[in-house]
Amino acid sequence: MPFTNPIPVRLKEARKKAKLSQKSLGESIGMDESSASPRMNQYEKGKHTPDVQTLKAIADKLGVPLNYFFCEDDSSAELACLIAQLTESERKKLIAALSRE
Amino acid sequence: MPFTNPIPVRLKEARKKAKLSQKSLGESIGMDESSASPRMNQYEKGKHTPDVQTLKAIADKLGVPLNYFFCEDDSSAELACLIAQLTESERKKLIAALSRE
Repeated sequence: MPFTNPIPVRLKEARKKAKLSQKSLGESIGMDESSASPRMNQYEKGKHTPDVQTLKAIADKLGVPLNYFFCEDDSSAELACLIAQLTESERKKLIAALSRE
Repeated sequence: MPFTNPIPVRLKEARKKAKLSQKSLGESIGMDESSASPRMNQYEKGKHTPDVQTLKAIADKLGVPLNYFFCEDDSSAELACLIAQLTESERKKLIAALSRE
C-alpha cells in the first residue's frame, strides 16, 4: 500500500475542531502575519512538511499530542488524544490490560 | 518545559529491541552500505531528523507504528505499539471505554 503522509489530514482535522483559521493558528505559534496563512495552507496540502519543533508548537496550541499528527488511521488518532488525557497510573493500567489480551 | 525531539530515543529503543545494528537497519531500508551506519547514527544522536517517508520505512522494518517515534513519554509509546496490534473493532471498543471515563 502506498504511504500517505498523515500530517495534512490530521492537521486540518485538529485545526477545524479547535475552530481556528490557518492564519490565526500560524500567527499564534509565531509566524509572520503575511506568511502564516500560506505556510499553514502548504502544510495542510502536503506541499511542505513542518519540522518537529513547529509541529510541537501546533500540537500544544491545538491541544493534541505530537504523535497525533503521525497516526495513520482515525481510530489510532482518536486513541492518541484520549491517552494524552490519562494520568501515568491510568496508562500503566491500560498497558497491563492490553498486554494480557 | 523545553521540548525534546522524541525521535532519537524512540529510534534507538526500537532498533535495540529488534536486535539490529544501525548499519543493517539502514541498509534494509535502502541506504548505501557506506552511508547506512553514519546516517542512522545521526538520526539517533538527533543531529539530523529523518523525513516522514524514511521514518515510515524504519517503522515498518522495526514493527512499530509511525506515530511511535513521536510519543513524548514511555507509557504513550508503549500504548502506541499495543494499539497498533488491535483490530479496528477492538479500537472502537477502547475509544468508547476511554470516552466514558
